[in-house]
Amino acid sequence: MQTAVDLHPAWLGEAHMPVMLPPSTPYEAAQRELGAFFAGRAGRTALRLEPGMGEAYAIQPEADGYVITGGESGVLYGAFALIRALRAGSPLPEGRQAPAYALRMLNCWDNMNGTVERGYAGRSLWFEDNAFCYDPARINALGRMLASVGVNVLCLNNVNVAEPAQELIGDLLPQLADFAALLRPWAVRLMVSIDFSMPVRDGLDTADPLDPRVAAWWRERASRVYEAIPDLAGFLVKADSEHRPGPHTYGRTHAEGANMLADALRPHGGALVWRAFVYNCKQDWRDTATDRPCAAYDLYRPLDGAFAENVILQVKYGPYDFQVREPVSPLLLGMPRTALSLELQLAQEYTGHQIDIFAMPPMWREVLDTVGPQRIRAIAAVSNLGRDANWTGHPFAQLNLYAFGCFAWDPQADPETVTRAWIRLTYPVFSAAQEDTLARLLMRSREVYERYTAPLGLCWMVRPETHYGPSPYGYEFQAWGTYNRADRNAVGIDRTANGTGYVLQYPEALRSLYEQPETCPDELLLFFHRLPYGWRMRDGRTLIQRIYDDHFDGCAQAEAMQAELETLPFPGRDSQVIRERMALQVMNAREWRDVVNTFFFRFSGAPDANGRVIYP
Amino acid sequence: MQTAVDLHPAWLGEAHMPVMLPPSTPYEAAQRELGAFFAGRAGRTALRLEPGMGEAYAIQPEADGYVITGGESGVLYGAFALIRALRAGSPLPEGRQAPAYALRMLNCWDNMNGTVERGYAGRSLWFEDNAFCYDPARINALGRMLASVGVNVLCLNNVNVAEPAQELIGDLLPQLADFAALLRPWAVRLMVSIDFSMPVRDGLDTADPLDPRVAAWWRERASRVYEAIPDLAGFLVKADSEHRPGPHTYGRTHAEGANMLADALRPHGGALVWRAFVYNCKQDWRDTATDRPCAAYDLYRPLDGAFAENVILQVKYGPYDFQVREPVSPLLLGMPRTALSLELQLAQEYTGHQIDIFAMPPMWREVLDTVGPQRIRAIAAVSNLGRDANWTGHPFAQLNLYAFGCFAWDPQADPETVTRAWIRLTYPVFSAAQEDTLARLLMRSREVYERYTAPLGLCWMVRPETHYGPSPYGYEFQAWGTYNRADRNAVGIDRTANGTGYVLQYPEALRSLYEQPETCPDELLLFFHRLPYGWRMRDGRTLIQRIYDDHFDGCAQAEAMQAELETLPFPGRDSQVIRERMALQVMNAREWRDVVNTFFFRFSGAPDANGRVIYP
Repeated sequence: MQTAVDLHPAWLGEAHMPVMLPPSTPYEAAQRELGAFFAGRAGRTALRLEPGMGEAYAIQPEADGYVITGGESGVLYGAFALIRALRAGSPLPEGRQAPAYALRMLNCWDNMNGTVERGYAGRSLWFEDNAFCYDPARINALGRMLASVGVNVLCLNNVNVAEPAQELIGDLLPQLADFAALLRPWAVRLMVSIDFSMPVRDGLDTADPLDPRVAAWWRERASRVYEAIPDLAGFLVKADSEHRPGPHTYGRTHAEGANMLADALRPHGGALVWRAFVYNCKQDWRDTATDRPCAAYDLYRPLDGAFAENVILQVKYGPYDFQVREPVSPLLLGMPRTALSLELQLAQEYTGHQIDIFAMPPMWREVLDTVGPQRIRAIAAVSNLGRDANWTGHPFAQLNLYAFGCFAWDPQADPETVTRAWIRLTYPVFSAAQEDTLARLLMRSREVYERYTAPLGLCWMVRPETHYGPSPYGYEFQAWGTYNRADRNAVGIDRTANGTGYVLQYPEALRSLYEQPETCPDELLLFFHRLPYGWRMRDGRTLIQRIYDDHFDGCAQAEAMQAELETLPFPGRDSQVIRERMALQVMNAREWRDVVNTFFFRFSGAPDANGRVIYP
Repeated sequence: MQTAVDLHPAWLGEAHMPVMLPPSTPYEAAQRELGAFFAGRAGRTALRLEPGMGEAYAIQPEADGYVITGGESGVLYGAFALIRALRAGSPLPEGRQAPAYALRMLNCWDNMNGTVERGYAGRSLWFEDNAFCYDPARINALGRMLASVGVNVLCLNNVNVAEPAQELIGDLLPQLADFAALLRPWAVRLMVSIDFSMPVRDGLDTADPLDPRVAAWWRERASRVYEAIPDLAGFLVKADSEHRPGPHTYGRTHAEGANMLADALRPHGGALVWRAFVYNCKQDWRDTATDRPCAAYDLYRPLDGAFAENVILQVKYGPYDFQVREPVSPLLLGMPRTALSLELQLAQEYTGHQIDIFAMPPMWREVLDTVGPQRIRAIAAVSNLGRDANWTGHPFAQLNLYAFGCFAWDPQADPETVTRAWIRLTYPVFSAAQEDTLARLLMRSREVYERYTAPLGLCWMVRPETHYGPSPYGYEFQAWGTYNRADRNAVGIDRTANGTGYVLQYPEALRSLYEQPETCPDELLLFFHRLPYGWRMRDGRTLIQRIYDDHFDGCAQAEAMQAELETLPFPGRDSQVIRERMALQVMNAREWRDVVNTFFFRFSGAPDANGRVIYP
């Protein structure tokens, strides 16, 4: 068992409930939360269970308190909504509240050896030494935290399924069921990442999805799994991607592969989530015809309408891989007859490793506005959690988890409103001015990070080994399909109809926006276009000058952040880690600024118009 | 215990001696070798032991055989010399033979977890699971192989001493003594890499070399160690380098640190080998005043004459770190009052990972000719051995171990003679023409590798993660002090008096040779000079054209090697691995050619004068 730590309460406030005693149902959990919250306060609450309401709830203010009406999990969400609103001083939600998406999933990339792939908050909360290993009180606290913002599915193991995680749906089923039971009272269901080739592991000579023995194997296996965990949310699959097995091994389509698995899950009400993160990860850098951002659309678009109704195609927000800035994936706009899930990433893989501050809500607002809430049927995010006492390494990274819950419930959510509520819940002693300071800092944190890292949508200037810190040519001659092709004259890739044609994957409005460098948004300019350093931006600056300016500005803003944070009265538990990481962020920003400026200076030979230091 | 494998006999020929029965003394070993060799042959041999001769021997041909006179290990060396000469058809050594250096050491970078740092031939032959773990028959075979070419010291553990290797001179002493006993009959003594901070590990509050308690601790420890292993060769130390502890922690000089340890070893006849591989591994790339090649000379030159007489300063052949081409380290030329050891590296860390063919004797000839045999008092090489059945991964890499023994014994050795002897011993069925083919291929293999990798002495264009394959800017913005500073106009670092001043560390003859680009040897041109791409080389070509030409040529030569190898009748055990690795080498050469050419084309904008393909 993992050692108990002195847990950070995150946005839930200091111990208003004894987390050591797990509830047995969401209803009981709701009762306890309300009981504990109102214990020292005036007012009474009543819960009215209306099972037909499911996850929905309504809060009715009464003369001496509140009545919360809701379904089995709805009452719990209502209780937390009430408590959050009262603690944060926010308006109460009016009328019936229901989540926009039934599947609001946290994807944990936890390996059974205890590591977390792209984890920046310590080791796994539930795996160690190739076994389940956890503090039940901590899992209870986790369930409570997820429920408090409406996250209802936890996929507990890495999509890259490594030994012995295949056995989560085999020999480890009893332990998996025990784990599921800990989260069930918090209305959090489990999902499991599976290995497409599992039947071969079990002795079959094939995993061909059209082989009747394979289909029968999965039907039988699904029955066993659902016998142990009747409310399992389903299976998550990464297939034919980055060396994972998949249907292509057998000459089958991804629809054939996914549908076979979906058939096995359907009798049990399970969903089959199929990740669309598929591309050629052995690209020859010499090959300029192949363009990685085109890959997923080229593969899946022809399959639109071919997936079974309980298949969900999970698509990363951009066509690359969680870069700081990407255009929205055209797949999200081009699969009208397929149930899509939008995949976000809370883990700050390319966005600062939970050292640099990167609040994601403004980014999600842009993505959701472009995609439109109706196009997707589910939402998922790669977890930023780990065994650190504060859950997320940097206390501010909690905001991303909190906000993910809010956006998954209500994709129209306002980033600043959500951020301010999180600040009030997390740092209740802050004055209005202090809240303003932190809210402004967080709201612009992504733009600051963007400015001092890869310029104007170029992506992939990060160190390949770690995905932290600058390495402008680090990916340039590798096999990942991630190039900037900077030379002495120009930089960027032409993705217009004259180039790789990627822009043609977009609907007309976006296509015509992106197609011309004159109309393409600045922040995506070098994603879509190859331009000479002397290119005139709309504001009259040259491209190279804009690159320099952004990097000087971004770094100066990081330095300003450091000064602003010094003015804020963070509690002791947070203040040291915030200060230490801010110092590291400033170092990182300076390194990015100087490396990127030098890189482009060496190619372009253009001096800075303002005479600032660019190292030769 | 490690599993016994079907061992590759290397240059010793097919099993003319049952290696499963270890001898008890070098004399007995010599008797057995001769007995087995002459068993099916005409002629008799006699051994005459003259203990005063030590390692020396003389072979006297008689009417019906040979008389070998020698010291305790000399008789063994004489026996092997006779057998090698007869098997290879080489002339017998005439008169008294004695090694040029008393210390001819193989440095093994074996970790106790079973890995070998920069090992390309499998896991450790004697460590696994943080313990000793070996097949005694294989260690016996290893001792025989080392003795057959006169290597007389084996440092068994990595200079980066990681848990629990500190205990080799502590709790693990009994096992260390058992291991030493296996090699003793082959006249191979052990050396141990130690951790300078070991007294702190043992409970002292300091490892300050001038603290009498620390000196006493080491004296006591040395006594314990020598009680267990009376013929231990000594200790090897990597201090104040790449995060290792050392005297600088306590404000002491390296002479103070080394002498304290040497004092502890002196009563027992042990040597203290101190590695001079010390530099700032946290350099700021912006800092153009600091120049890593200057570091060792700057640090050690002022200490010349300050080291105790049983201290040996072990210096890598170049001022960087085992690059394909470096000028000789000026430290080797500038420490007349210090016992120096020349450190070579058989492990092909930067020279092809024992995939690409890289025969080192021609390189060593150059180094030894520049240094002069009298300047050094010992010679060491980082091992290329591992658990692979053929010992070295690539069968040709055995040549480097064989030749190291020859050069350590006789630093005047001729590379081609040594290479041809190795071929005859290893592939006795080859015809004279086949021997010629392979000898020519091996003799030019370093130049081929050099041509398709980093140009003209630039160094460090290799992938930082692996040290294999091209990444021209991979080290450029890192902290290792390893930059090429390529830009749109020029490339290289000015190390003349006008630049970093590194050239001033050389004696006058070399200084004036290197100082002017007009006289500097082509292969070191960009090591010493920063030059524009249009620079005219002595042969009239521009610098950029020479870079292109070299890369096209080097790759074409690798392709030609592949065809040549197909003509040679390698035995089955070797032919597959040689063919597979040659195919990988050709791939590697093409990747290097195209990446380096494209890199410089993107900077220079210069087309190839011969119109060959350079990818944009």
